[in-house]
Amino acid sequence: MQFSIQKDYLVRSVQEVMKAVSSRTTIPILTGIKLVVTDDGVILTGSDSDISIQSFIPKEEAGDEIVEIKSTGSVVLQAKYFSEIVKKLPKNTVDIEVGENLLTKIKSGKSEFNLNGLNAEDYPHLPKLEEHQTIKVRGDLLRNIIKQTVYAVSSSENRPILTGVNWKITNNELICTATDSHRLSQRKSVVQSDFNLDGYNANIVIPGKSLNELSKIIDDMEEMIDVVITDNQVLFRTKHIQFFSRLLEGNYPDTTKLIPTDMKTIIQVNSRELLQAIDRASLLAREGNNNVVKLEIIDSNTVEITSNSPEIGKVTDEVVCNKIEGEELKISFSAKYMLDTLRVSEGSDVEISFTGAMRPFVITNTNDNSILQLVLPVRTY
Amino acid sequence: MQFSIQKDYLVRSVQEVMKAVSSRTTIPILTGIKLVVTDDGVILTGSDSDISIQSFIPKEEAGDEIVEIKSTGSVVLQAKYFSEIVKKLPKNTVDIEVGENLLTKIKSGKSEFNLNGLNAEDYPHLPKLEEHQTIKVRGDLLRNIIKQTVYAVSSSENRPILTGVNWKITNNELICTATDSHRLSQRKSVVQSDFNLDGYNANIVIPGKSLNELSKIIDDMEEMIDVVITDNQVLFRTKHIQFFSRLLEGNYPDTTKLIPTDMKTIIQVNSRELLQAIDRASLLAREGNNNVVKLEIIDSNTVEITSNSPEIGKVTDEVVCNKIEGEELKISFSAKYMLDTLRVSEGSDVEISFTGAMRPFVITNTNDNSILQLVLPVRTY
Repeated sequence: MQFSIQKDYLVRSVQEVMKAVSSRTTIPILTGIKLVVTDDGVILTGSDSDISIQSFIPKEEAGDEIVEIKSTGSVVLQAKYFSEIVKKLPKNTVDIEVGENLLTKIKSGKSEFNLNGLNAEDYPHLPKLEEHQTIKVRGDLLRNIIKQTVYAVSSSENRPILTGVNWKITNNELICTATDSHRLSQRKSVVQSDFNLDGYNANIVIPGKSLNELSKIIDDMEEMIDVVITDNQVLFRTKHIQFFSRLLEGNYPDTTKLIPTDMKTIIQVNSRELLQAIDRASLLAREGNNNVVKLEIIDSNTVEITSNSPEIGKVTDEVVCNKIEGEELKISFSAKYMLDTLRVSEGSDVEISFTGAMRPFVITNTNDNSILQLVLPVRTY
Repeated sequence: MQFSIQKDYLVRSVQEVMKAVSSRTTIPILTGIKLVVTDDGVILTGSDSDISIQSFIPKEEAGDEIVEIKSTGSVVLQAKYFSEIVKKLPKNTVDIEVGENLLTKIKSGKSEFNLNGLNAEDYPHLPKLEEHQTIKVRGDLLRNIIKQTVYAVSSSENRPILTGVNWKITNNELICTATDSHRLSQRKSVVQSDFNLDGYNANIVIPGKSLNELSKIIDDMEEMIDVVITDNQVLFRTKHIQFFSRLLEGNYPDTTKLIPTDMKTIIQVNSRELLQAIDRASLLAREGNNNVVKLEIIDSNTVEITSNSPEIGKVTDEVVCNKIEGEELKISFSAKYMLDTLRVSEGSDVEISFTGAMRPFVITNTNDNSILQLVLPVRTY
């Protein structure tokens, strides 16, 4: 295996596959990056066995030569060293050659590294997915879907299924749901396909961690991303990256019954103004008060946000709402959960629907019914 | 005590004095910020008893009213909460009023915080320094002096005196020296004064931590900074900040004898090129090799930098020098120490003078004799 490559392309691909490499793996070879040189280009692979990322560097792109292939082959190099080395090489061209005993020479300008390589045959194979129906989602939509749901997954392994986001596809409708049983976020969207999606069904749970990593890799927001779903794997594919994630096993709980419908009080308010008031109130609530703040309707268009930690002090804030309808209300909730929820709305107006101080309340965007969020109150009154 | 203040000024001053506040203090009141309101403005103080910072906000500046003083007085407020609160207040004007039992109301727009205050009488007094002779140093020079010396202080408490930087003033010459006994940095400069400095003498050791914090506070690079030195304290004073630091007790070792004069090999080289080659070599040396790299003269104008960690691999780099004079040389040193040293030169050409593989070597700037640095080699050959 011997090739010359433009440094920038190598650095970018190494950074992409590094997102899957973990130093805490029980499979030693997974601390490495696999390089495979074919007649078409170079394929890099990183994996922690839950997530696997493959990045392809083509021989040429838009008429420019990116890789000059002298001989094909493969090797696995220690990710920690290889990723640092390529970043710090002095010149724009890098020569890589595997010699005897897999000793790999990395040369750029006057710098020459010789790294002990490992046998690529020992590297686990990526799952082979049979592609019956491929779904397509635009990069920016996929990033939004992830951002708007993944914050609500559980960080506790008590119920492992809740550490993932449920993706349910019926025909061309995708419903993504995440909940840690204290709050919930649900995002509806429409997916595309080259196939006819009538009658298509899928119901999977993707680990939150995988979606967080995937979100970091989507850089071209306008590119259509292929999604291939199988029983135990999902593949997200862009022009040069393949991102595999294992799926969580088990049935995702039915969350439809959690969402109340008998609304007694409705508030319409700018999400940023409410967010900032809750953020201020939470300053004193964090230590003295389990980060719980109170919301109370004090007149026809104003809510009061308060927090009281006797040791430290108290805070009172008022937010003028666009509209308040229905019954009087005093309610307490976790400032953190409510801040996470309001951040999803990015400053637009929201409608918050309450069924009473002890029942979950629902947050929707006033101008966008694709997102529904839910927060459970905290009993204090 | 009651006043209204422009938020930006309050936020800036709080951030400045926060640099002295530590949450790990044995004196509980020092977790607070002291506010004193006089007829002239507001004085904020933060301290960890080693460093004390006082920031003054004048009633008006350039004709603009900054503080409207309704009544004078003082209070101590929990730094952790007060600093977060002022940053997040919603409006440009902040009203602060101390009421009964030192309960302090902080109001801005519709936000109202009530914080439990402490008695300012219980706050330790700042040292009163008798000012015989005040020295003046320009902001940018002071920042440079600190940056070029403080990196070399010891991080070990084995010899506490070495955790500080020695400032020795004779007439108008300031010599700053730092060493951890493995490397040394010495910076000479000329200080000014409104007084005649002939016959002036001072010899103090300023804790490295104090200088690091001071360096962060110097924002106006052209402003002259007053330096007042006493037996156990030093005060740095700008237009609106007073920065006090205690001094380290004890005699700073005489370092003049450490500096060799019988040079056998001299190399002139661009500091950035050498730095990058050592940085690359250190990539493989960190774990396998105690971060030791080797330098060897390989021909009339080239040095080779190498590192070999059998488990991981080896690296060879070459750097073309401007000039090499004298005996042949193979020497090993800590990559970290040499990188720290070369960073001080910010890319300019340096002269490195060796007395042999087992003796300290000296690094000076080719075009600037105000800085002298020294590194001890590591025995490997």
